[in-house]
Amino acid sequence: MVGGGRGAFIGGVHRIGAAIDGHIELVCGAFSSDPERSRLSGEDLYVPANRVYGSYQEMIEKEKLLPEGERMDFVSIVTPNHVHFGPAKMALENGFHVVCDKPLAFTMEEALELEALVKKTGLIFALTHNYTGYPMVKQARAMVRSGELGKIRKVVVEYPQGWLSKKEEDNNYKQAIWRTDPTQSGIAGAMGDIGTHAENLAEYVTGLQITEMCADISIFVEGRLLDDDGNVLLHFDNGAKGILHASQISAGEENGLNIRVYGEKGGLYWRQEEPNTLLVSRLDKPKEIYRPKITPLSPEANAHIRVPAGHPEGYLEAFANIYRNFALAVQARMAGEAPDPLLDFPTVSDGVRGMRFIEKVIESGKSTAKWVKF
Amino acid sequence: MVGGGRGAFIGGVHRIGAAIDGHIELVCGAFSSDPERSRLSGEDLYVPANRVYGSYQEMIEKEKLLPEGERMDFVSIVTPNHVHFGPAKMALENGFHVVCDKPLAFTMEEALELEALVKKTGLIFALTHNYTGYPMVKQARAMVRSGELGKIRKVVVEYPQGWLSKKEEDNNYKQAIWRTDPTQSGIAGAMGDIGTHAENLAEYVTGLQITEMCADISIFVEGRLLDDDGNVLLHFDNGAKGILHASQISAGEENGLNIRVYGEKGGLYWRQEEPNTLLVSRLDKPKEIYRPKITPLSPEANAHIRVPAGHPEGYLEAFANIYRNFALAVQARMAGEAPDPLLDFPTVSDGVRGMRFIEKVIESGKSTAKWVKF
Amino acid sequence: MVGGGRGAFIGGVHRIGAAIDGHIELVCGAFSSDPERSRLSGEDLYVPANRVYGSYQEMIEKEKLLPEGERMDFVSIVTPNHVHFGPAKMALENGFHVVCDKPLAFTMEEALELEALVKKTGLIFALTHNYTGYPMVKQARAMVRSGELGKIRKVVVEYPQGWLSKKEEDNNYKQAIWRTDPTQSGIAGAMGDIGTHAENLAEYVTGLQITEMCADISIFVEGRLLDDDGNVLLHFDNGAKGILHASQISAGEENGLNIRVYGEKGGLYWRQEEPNTLLVSRLDKPKEIYRPKITPLSPEANAHIRVPAGHPEGYLEAFANIYRNFALAVQARMAGEAPDPLLDFPTVSDGVRGMRFIEKVIESGKSTAKWVKF
Amino acid sequence: MVGGGRGAFIGGVHRIGAAIDGHIELVCGAFSSDPERSRLSGEDLYVPANRVYGSYQEMIEKEKLLPEGERMDFVSIVTPNHVHFGPAKMALENGFHVVCDKPLAFTMEEALELEALVKKTGLIFALTHNYTGYPMVKQARAMVRSGELGKIRKVVVEYPQGWLSKKEEDNNYKQAIWRTDPTQSGIAGAMGDIGTHAENLAEYVTGLQITEMCADISIFVEGRLLDDDGNVLLHFDNGAKGILHASQISAGEENGLNIRVYGEKGGLYWRQEEPNTLLVSRLDKPKEIYRPKITPLSPEANAHIRVPAGHPEGYLEAFANIYRNFALAVQARMAGEAPDPLLDFPTVSDGVRGMRFIEKVIESGKSTAKWVKF
Repeated sequence: MVGGGRGAFIGGVHRIGAAIDGHIELVCGAFSSDPERSRLSGEDLYVPANRVYGSYQEMIEKEKLLPEGERMDFVSIVTPNHVHFGPAKMALENGFHVVCDKPLAFTMEEALELEALVKKTGLIFALTHNYTGYPMVKQARAMVRSGELGKIRKVVVEYPQGWLSKKEEDNNYKQAIWRTDPTQSGIAGAMGDIGTHAENLAEYVTGLQITEMCADISIFVEGRLLDDDGNVLLHFDNGAKGILHASQISAGEENGLNIRVYGEKGGLYWRQEEPNTLLVSRLDKPKEIYRPKITPLSPEANAHIRVPAGHPEGYLEAFANIYRNFALAVQARMAGEAPDPLLDFPTVSDGVRGMRFIEKVIESGKSTAKWVKF
Repeated sequence: MVGGGRGAFIGGVHRIGAAIDGHIELVCGAFSSDPERSRLSGEDLYVPANRVYGSYQEMIEKEKLLPEGERMDFVSIVTPNHVHFGPAKMALENGFHVVCDKPLAFTMEEALELEALVKKTGLIFALTHNYTGYPMVKQARAMVRSGELGKIRKVVVEYPQGWLSKKEEDNNYKQAIWRTDPTQSGIAGAMGDIGTHAENLAEYVTGLQITEMCADISIFVEGRLLDDDGNVLLHFDNGAKGILHASQISAGEENGLNIRVYGEKGGLYWRQEEPNTLLVSRLDKPKEIYRPKITPLSPEANAHIRVPAGHPEGYLEAFANIYRNFALAVQARMAGEAPDPLLDFPTVSDGVRGMRFIEKVIESGKSTAKWVKF
Repeated sequence: MVGGGRGAFIGGVHRIGAAIDGHIELVCGAFSSDPERSRLSGEDLYVPANRVYGSYQEMIEKEKLLPEGERMDFVSIVTPNHVHFGPAKMALENGFHVVCDKPLAFTMEEALELEALVKKTGLIFALTHNYTGYPMVKQARAMVRSGELGKIRKVVVEYPQGWLSKKEEDNNYKQAIWRTDPTQSGIAGAMGDIGTHAENLAEYVTGLQITEMCADISIFVEGRLLDDDGNVLLHFDNGAKGILHASQISAGEENGLNIRVYGEKGGLYWRQEEPNTLLVSRLDKPKEIYRPKITPLSPEANAHIRVPAGHPEGYLEAFANIYRNFALAVQARMAGEAPDPLLDFPTVSDGVRGMRFIEKVIESGKSTAKWVKF
Repeated sequence: MVGGGRGAFIGGVHRIGAAIDGHIELVCGAFSSDPERSRLSGEDLYVPANRVYGSYQEMIEKEKLLPEGERMDFVSIVTPNHVHFGPAKMALENGFHVVCDKPLAFTMEEALELEALVKKTGLIFALTHNYTGYPMVKQARAMVRSGELGKIRKVVVEYPQGWLSKKEEDNNYKQAIWRTDPTQSGIAGAMGDIGTHAENLAEYVTGLQITEMCADISIFVEGRLLDDDGNVLLHFDNGAKGILHASQISAGEENGLNIRVYGEKGGLYWRQEEPNTLLVSRLDKPKEIYRPKITPLSPEANAHIRVPAGHPEGYLEAFANIYRNFALAVQARMAGEAPDPLLDFPTVSDGVRGMRFIEKVIESGKSTAKWVKF
């Protein structure tokens, strides 16, 4: 693992996600750019001292020297955005599969380079667009794909948060500081941090691709350097229209990612904060409440549920689904087998698409032209 | 009453709205442009045969000849959009107060002429933007106005419906036919029918005014002549940003008007389909559920509730609030008194603003420029 | 109308319920036992001064002398419980149909006498167990009756309120004072005021009859004279088991009447505070959300809806359904026709059953035997 | 681990619960009474073959011989009810701490013997009444304890499920078979399986103890040998009244454990299927929605949350809280330190109380006396 030391947030999430299904063991790490912090973090995590490293470079170099079976099988990258590219590139170049947090990289160029490297090496690369790991998101995608809703006409995807309503980056709040800092986050704030999740969710569920956008991007909190709100009109490749909005100043909102999809024959609604419920409408029938295990679901959804009906699964289990699927893909690779097609996960190409979204949505926000091509 | 004969929808709503509080009695009507249908409708409604008229012209002329105290006190206009102007103008010119369904008129010119006429005659004119009649909408407005949410930053107002997902205007469905017919509805379909309600609600609750818009207007159902969906980015006069979308092809949606308002200190959420609940967020406090009578509310809200806590009021009561307030304003006028300032209702100027919205949103939809001034 | 003067609650509800559909006009009243208050209330209500009476006796006597077509067609009784019997009896004896608020009477003896009198006179008698007037309650009943849920096994009916959590009867609060006073309410407090609604709803929806009960009846607020909470186990005549609980000290609850019914093939759930939604479960299928107009419903439900999908109807409309059905039954009687079987309303026999419930639940509360026969 | 082999349900839950926080590693197991099945299960779980045992006796004997630091630190028992006592007793007698699934044992006698043994050995014993591991349940308990709701008057605890609406035990459905079999489950079916969770939750949240019960216990599915439904009236030691009902034939219900608590000053509501929300009412204030991280919560609640606001945690995380707290208590013991008082978990005494509940609720169900002492 690269990153995820004391004080970090997403590193712990990755570790739990990796641990839940018992296929993955944390064997080494460069948990912080501060070697002492890395060492202490390793202790917290029961990682043997000799495999806690002071930098990702050291980790990759030394682990590579260990015998197969003992050395790490893949690298997890859980650092801020500007430290995705370096370790990802080096891991790939040294033959390690990679799990990387989103967005894929700091710049579009880096993203494209990583995509090329994955293609070249043939290694497995998972990007933790974790929200697509939810079973009911799989169900939504399967239903759209099967044509149950008819041709899709309209998509509304929202990602409201309120936690940056005040200038939290001045309050020594680590999560706020790097996310609002262009040198660590890149050209976008909210649109990169959560807007990309919304974009990914919309395209994943519908199977459509955004073709053009019209964005209204704002910084509401005085003195903030990156966007904390954005409202975007969307056009999709089948003629569908859409709205995407993401915000970190929507006071009172928690982590309100949600999507509505309307087709010629029906619609659906899913909301991350109550992720085990999918509302499905069909013209001239009562609205239906799809729920894990009690509702007959698609194989795609069923393959991502661990517990019986009414036992809520949450964010960590969705995250774990990505790790589980990645781990089984790695196992299959080792065994020379094909991976199970039901067990998908976001790839480096989803990451490139996310980076393109960031680039274009910021461009559109600055443009006086109505539409910017994706 | 003008319009509202057999087979109509909104006429019945107006009658119930007028009847609920006991201040208004239906004394005469020109219920249909078909005299026989008008006669039969009058019978259904227990209106004396001699006061059921074959046209609004006849009604206004004959009623005017009746002695005061016996003749009608005001005219309710519940016809399709293209028959608002004629009776409204004639009623005003003959000294009758008016209640008119929205949108105010068929064209902007008509709307401005009516506004001028109201100003000139000093008569009372209510427009049934009924959704602002809900007590919890009054509460929302009062809370924004009092500054409890701080400066408003973002407004999301939605009006999804799904009832025109199929080409219902071909199914001999009267409500669908006139709403999708440019000769009866005007230049807009969904944006005029329900988009104006959304615009009115957003401005009413926030006290802000839209200054510019960027609209993406669509016709999804093949062969339909007017828009059935629209997505709009908004700018408000205090710098707030917003999204407005209205649709009649959002399959599975009923009458889902709702609004979210986010300010520097808090946010609120109201949804027409569960109108007795207002969700209120304040930074660093638990989210609160405001409900009639059990929650201490503003005087504005309390003045529009009829029953104790937990006894749901609905659409008809909100409509009745407009009629009640209008009737009391007329009574106050007759008594030479000032109307109660708590008992407001939408006026001809709100109607003009709604007509401007229709004009501009359609213009923006056709424009390649990003922003169109309101 | 008998009762319902200034300061009353349910009288106003009856008047709105009667007015909504335009079939009923308020023509006279004895609005208060205080003649001056009655007079002033009549003025408020636009009732001609000569038909505002000082007592119900006077009203019935004088109205009877008026010519048919002019005199009142029926009597509405909206007084506290101890003044139901007198006016109801006198109205029936003088040939007037009756609408009476619940519970039917002050004692079981009175109730039986009224039932006998209705049978003898053949007059129409409606009891305002208004909660059965909701369209989705009609739908629930129709679905049980059609066998869609299979044989019913379990019923849970709840009526929690919190408004008497403190000793409101000491706060000069009229609604609290008479409801907690044995000389006005009878032998029961909460169980009579709202427990009877729960009993009526359970039997109405399921078509079953309670055969025995085991009750735990409490007074929680010190110094209160009548029960403010009761928990009851139920047995039904088909072998189903049930729970009924009603409370006025459930702090935070508004008017939370709700019912769950479970059968061999499915279940349903309805809640008065969101009355336009009925949740329906069938084994091995997704749970369904039944809503007016957008869901295909039974004729019984459809006959009680006034507005399109997504336009919420509430408490007053449910009340109006009872008045409308009663009025149409009276009209049919006058016309010598049979009443429409879809347009039912609670009768004097439902009232007798409610009085029996009160008697038995209080008896069971005092008993050390487990079960008391209904 | 004892039990939890292929085809089992709760074993997997225990393993995930143990893995989530990284403090516990699965080192050995007797996963099935069938040695071959045990062996295969061990392989699935990456347990070294030499530490997969054919019986719990073998496991305890052999592990005991391993050097400290290598041998297992505690035993998890995840077998059906009739195989709790044997391994628990043997583990305790051999110096191992124990985590045991509920109910504690097959009979009251066994339960008491285990309680005595825990007391005698001083070992740490956790019972997985997992629902008390939810953060918002901790919050509810803390709020009652702090007196914020005033003296508690009424408790309604429900545990409806519908999964045994048909005779699933005839469908080769392992989970149904043992739960409905008196030789594996004991004297109770639903009341033991889920009724005890409800009892535990009610007493945990309120801090009160049930003193007497009146139960109506049923078998609805023909041919079933143990209760599949029970409705119970409760008296608590402070004078509060309550209702507990649990069911496995409530068609359409999933795993609907929920609790409402009403006190003199307020009330609260929590529902397992949406576990991150706690509704809190205070007289004369708006109802509040308590949610993790965004609402200021008690230290007890905060100590059991892993992720930021709006990232839902679920059943597995609640389970993990018990394992985490148990593991930290074991670590503290090893380090000679006192355990953190915020990190509680259900103990053997909670298990004895659950067994008493089972005994008494079945006794009451058969009794013709109204009340049975707890």
